[in-house]
Amino acid sequence: MHTLRDIAQLIKAELFGDPTAEIIRTRPFEAAEPGDITYAANPSYRGRLDDCRATAVIISPPAETSSRNLLVAANPKLAFARAIQALHGTVYTGQGVSPDLITGVGTVLGRQLSILARVTIGRDCEIGDRVSLYPGVVIGDRCRIGDDSVIHSNVSVYDDTRIGSRVIIHAGAVIGADGFAFVPGEDGRQVKVLQLGRVRIEDDCEIGANCAIDRAAFGETLLKGGVKLDNLIQVGHNSEIGEHTVVAALTGFSGGARVGRRCVIAGQVGTNQHITIGDGAIVAGQAGVTKNVRAGAMMAGTPAQELNSWRRSQVLYSRLPRLADRIAKLEIAAGLREKK
Amino acid sequence: MHTLRDIAQLIKAELFGDPTAEIIRTRPFEAAEPGDITYAANPSYRGRLDDCRATAVIISPPAETSSRNLLVAANPKLAFARAIQALHGTVYTGQGVSPDLITGVGTVLGRQLSILARVTIGRDCEIGDRVSLYPGVVIGDRCRIGDDSVIHSNVSVYDDTRIGSRVIIHAGAVIGADGFAFVPGEDGRQVKVLQLGRVRIEDDCEIGANCAIDRAAFGETLLKGGVKLDNLIQVGHNSEIGEHTVVAALTGFSGGARVGRRCVIAGQVGTNQHITIGDGAIVAGQAGVTKNVRAGAMMAGTPAQELNSWRRSQVLYSRLPRLADRIAKLEIAAGLREKK
Amino acid sequence: MHTLRDIAQLIKAELFGDPTAEIIRTRPFEAAEPGDITYAANPSYRGRLDDCRATAVIISPPAETSSRNLLVAANPKLAFARAIQALHGTVYTGQGVSPDLITGVGTVLGRQLSILARVTIGRDCEIGDRVSLYPGVVIGDRCRIGDDSVIHSNVSVYDDTRIGSRVIIHAGAVIGADGFAFVPGEDGRQVKVLQLGRVRIEDDCEIGANCAIDRAAFGETLLKGGVKLDNLIQVGHNSEIGEHTVVAALTGFSGGARVGRRCVIAGQVGTNQHITIGDGAIVAGQAGVTKNVRAGAMMAGTPAQELNSWRRSQVLYSRLPRLADRIAKLEIAAGLREKK
Repeated sequence: MHTLRDIAQLIKAELFGDPTAEIIRTRPFEAAEPGDITYAANPSYRGRLDDCRATAVIISPPAETSSRNLLVAANPKLAFARAIQALHGTVYTGQGVSPDLITGVGTVLGRQLSILARVTIGRDCEIGDRVSLYPGVVIGDRCRIGDDSVIHSNVSVYDDTRIGSRVIIHAGAVIGADGFAFVPGEDGRQVKVLQLGRVRIEDDCEIGANCAIDRAAFGETLLKGGVKLDNLIQVGHNSEIGEHTVVAALTGFSGGARVGRRCVIAGQVGTNQHITIGDGAIVAGQAGVTKNVRAGAMMAGTPAQELNSWRRSQVLYSRLPRLADRIAKLEIAAGLREKK
Repeated sequence: MHTLRDIAQLIKAELFGDPTAEIIRTRPFEAAEPGDITYAANPSYRGRLDDCRATAVIISPPAETSSRNLLVAANPKLAFARAIQALHGTVYTGQGVSPDLITGVGTVLGRQLSILARVTIGRDCEIGDRVSLYPGVVIGDRCRIGDDSVIHSNVSVYDDTRIGSRVIIHAGAVIGADGFAFVPGEDGRQVKVLQLGRVRIEDDCEIGANCAIDRAAFGETLLKGGVKLDNLIQVGHNSEIGEHTVVAALTGFSGGARVGRRCVIAGQVGTNQHITIGDGAIVAGQAGVTKNVRAGAMMAGTPAQELNSWRRSQVLYSRLPRLADRIAKLEIAAGLREKK
Repeated sequence: MHTLRDIAQLIKAELFGDPTAEIIRTRPFEAAEPGDITYAANPSYRGRLDDCRATAVIISPPAETSSRNLLVAANPKLAFARAIQALHGTVYTGQGVSPDLITGVGTVLGRQLSILARVTIGRDCEIGDRVSLYPGVVIGDRCRIGDDSVIHSNVSVYDDTRIGSRVIIHAGAVIGADGFAFVPGEDGRQVKVLQLGRVRIEDDCEIGANCAIDRAAFGETLLKGGVKLDNLIQVGHNSEIGEHTVVAALTGFSGGARVGRRCVIAGQVGTNQHITIGDGAIVAGQAGVTKNVRAGAMMAGTPAQELNSWRRSQVLYSRLPRLADRIAKLEIAAGLREKK
């Protein structure tokens, strides 16, 4: 339990109301009850603050008079995320190492681990402190996993993978499978290009369920610090994704794609090989990125173009039948076509 | 072995032919042999009934004179599905609980189970009667699985998941991983929004291989009774899919999507967050649903529009070079452009 | 270590330089060091051969004078792939069968196996010689796996699957789950069409991480010899993919699709059910193949059309605002519209 004063401080909000009010948990606006802190996520909630049953509501400036305790924050969504962490985040406690752990020779384990049942680790690995490995996790040879990382059930990590600290990998993800590289031989059979590189995932990344991140042909496939991947994402060999970029589900990066920092890549996006997406770019869902994208651009469509010009084309696309009618009328007026 | 009389009754078809004929199995029209029942799936098969070697053929009305035994059903595809079940469906027999089952404290197991080798179940779970768990299945804490459900190999189920009765989950699926929710902090780092909700899968759902169904931020991500998901589908946090809706492979529902009952969602469809798709709507493959869809609508394209208007635009799109030529000719006729 | 003479012979290239030079490994052009063989992958590298630190560079004809040892090959990419294999390919050595292997009755194991920990095999299977099974692999009943095949961690193989020789299946893939087939019953509930067929994967196929290849309704879902699938690919029931065809990530083939030999199918492609793609066809990324595709065609767009006409339409699509302006001007000139 926290007082509202404590919470206000933790979430960096200004409190208008009773600093001694007690807060037990967070809940969405409509479902909130006394003891809850909530967040006026929807603009329409702003006019209904008095109807809300929460003990306190996080809002954006300006403050106002209300029967509710109000927490005013420049970024209320961020403040709410922090409130959730403060009230519901759990403190890590090591659950120990399951006696059935299988490890190869030369593997070194850290302290205060939570290695659950049925985990298999290869040889010459380094597992940091306070690492959590869930059942069915398979780690290959010569892998490194940094402190405080969490790898969920049935994740497969191939040999030589580097995983940083505080990384979360969700169930079923595959890290380090061979990049997709074949050359047709003289007889039409595909000759495999052996993939000699590896995958490196830097600190604070989160990787969604059933993602596939391929090892590099040479060198590294690289997820830089703080990258967040949703589920079912494909990262081709030798791709590099910049710091704090977020990527939604079912997107695929072809080999050698370079994505900048703090980009927002929506779902089901695809890219050509070796393209570059500049820092801070935003790519809309289902876009097909066939050329380099400048920093800060907003892109949409296949092939992807600037969002504004895509929107103009898209509006006209939906009016194509009308455009065709207008052309026909002009042709009649010009005597190029007979009236129907 | 069944007589044709029995089969006709089971599949609710009218029999024209020998009620005592014996049926052993089902096979497709072209491959059928004596002892088989088959189905004139293709209209062209209707004219070739006498060539078919099957003992009986399921057709749509009207009946006709044929050397084959005929089973006339209003919905022959449905009748054939029932014939396959009648002839090839197996009766469940519990294979017992593998002695290597790992379960946490407080977990309660039902009767007549088929828990194969290398299954791991957490604490405080309730597993119903006649549940089948294949090797490598990992169930978290506080999960419930209803009677007669089947969970295939290497499925990962996170804590607190609710799975109904007669649910089938195919191999590699991940149920209950964290919803994808981050807020950029003042320093550009992504702050994780802890996901406090869970996944609920109601009775008679089927979930394809390597699907990913995320837990809710608050409350539930919900698959209602009889939902059928193909493989590699993403269901974002707090999505809700209505009864008996079918969804084809590689489709992704963003967070908070609400899909109605008896919808047909084709493959590689994507949706925006928080959109609603009305009951009975049909969405064509690769469509991008950016706005609410009315009940019964047929949608296509990105952004999705009504199928009919999409088709008109699409036809004109493929004729754009011709439209451009016509404009150029008009410009020449109007003296706005020189003749080439 | 190899001499350059040996390498030239192995990769079928003509050597211009010192045949006794010693080669230790392969590296990319920019990163190469003495002892390396590399490949002028990028045309711009051709003018910078003297800057390269590699001991030898593979180039396309014609030969030229250079301070580097040159290996001239008609297909330098193919020659480089072979050099990588020659220098970095490992010789298989059986690691034996883990004592914790679980197998059902009637299963027959080959010789010189590498069955790692925590593998589960059903009954009546045949496992060939020199097969590698990684931890967490689950093989159902009555499966066959040919010689020299490699199945990576946490792969799930359903009953009755046939896998040829020298097949590689990457982690998390699911082979043989039920095809997606339901018929709405009179009450709107979906009736499952039992899937009685199986999956057959012929020799020399490679299947990417987290792919899903469904069993056939009747008969077989078939990957012919040498098919290469990238990650996260859906192959629907009764699909057939021809010899040496390559398919990029996140593509989905609907039920009954027939893809020819030596096709190149890019990423995120979708197909309708029962379509045919002719031999040697190329389908661009994100295309939606709704009709049969002739052999050798290059297709793009949704619905897919010939690449050339798609390009023309696409260029005009991006110029639609300009076309609309031109129509408006014509209308003004024709007195059909007032000047703004």
